[in-house]
Amino acid sequence: MAGFTDARGVKRQLYLEDLAVGDRFVSAEHPLDAKQIVDFATRFDPQPFHTDPDAAEATFFKGLAASGWHTASITMNLLVTSCIPLADGIIGSGGEIQWPKPTRPGDVLHVEAEVMEIIPSRSQPTRGMVLMRCETFNQHGDVLQRFSPKMVVSRRPA
Amino acid sequence: MAGFTDARGVKRQLYLEDLAVGDRFVSAEHPLDAKQIVDFATRFDPQPFHTDPDAAEATFFKGLAASGWHTASITMNLLVTSCIPLADGIIGSGGEIQWPKPTRPGDVLHVEAEVMEIIPSRSQPTRGMVLMRCETFNQHGDVLQRFSPKMVVSRRPA
Repeated sequence: MAGFTDARGVKRQLYLEDLAVGDRFVSAEHPLDAKQIVDFATRFDPQPFHTDPDAAEATFFKGLAASGWHTASITMNLLVTSCIPLADGIIGSGGEIQWPKPTRPGDVLHVEAEVMEIIPSRSQPTRGMVLMRCETFNQHGDVLQRFSPKMVVSRRPA
Repeated sequence: MAGFTDARGVKRQLYLEDLAVGDRFVSAEHPLDAKQIVDFATRFDPQPFHTDPDAAEATFFKGLAASGWHTASITMNLLVTSCIPLADGIIGSGGEIQWPKPTRPGDVLHVEAEVMEIIPSRSQPTRGMVLMRCETFNQHGDVLQRFSPKMVVSRRPA
């Protein structure tokens, strides 16, 4: 594999040729608190179980929970800043996302990602698609999110 | 269908019994600008094509584009505040998400949602699952996001 290893042990500047099925990446951690949950939800998912700790008790979630899109956004930040150092950035066309358990105040999130499949492009000689599996965990090992994105990954320039 | 129709013509307080396959909902609009795109991405997806209009020109996106998670979060806000008035809120367990085209500064987003399938729960008499198709459009009719969530929907209390 090309690239260099940074202080966290993460190789930077990866191209399609540097990836192999089974390669794994582990992110840094993101500690979450009630204020972050309420701030995000107030803007993007204003429902009582995401914005009001007291009202949340009587809801499906039985207490304050983060919006799934907040979990997804924190996951993306961890992928970008500390997990998969792709040379041209992390560009996803979409994928299957699941939230098996609610994300709660006090959770410390990290992401583990694995290369599942590498699909060279027939029409685009400069890039290919990579199917990843990205799981977001809390400090107890609970899986809070599963996401299986297809990412656009550049080949190393000639 | 139960519930009442609000000023936007949206029926509020819908329960599982009020939904039928083929029911459609249309949201209000959200105008997006470069500042919102950069603000969101700085926090959650800090990559040059989402944070730096000049640097974005030389990237895959050939100009500033919103993070997919920003499009998803705006979509959720539109679903919650102006689209599907479920009595106990919009609670999704996940689904398939796709971003067929980049979301750009100046785009005016709205969401159109359709009930695809209604799945009564065998184990939970108070609720069921509803498979929705939610498409996010810009003002030109381009589909910016497709999301097919499974939502948890309460039955009307006895």
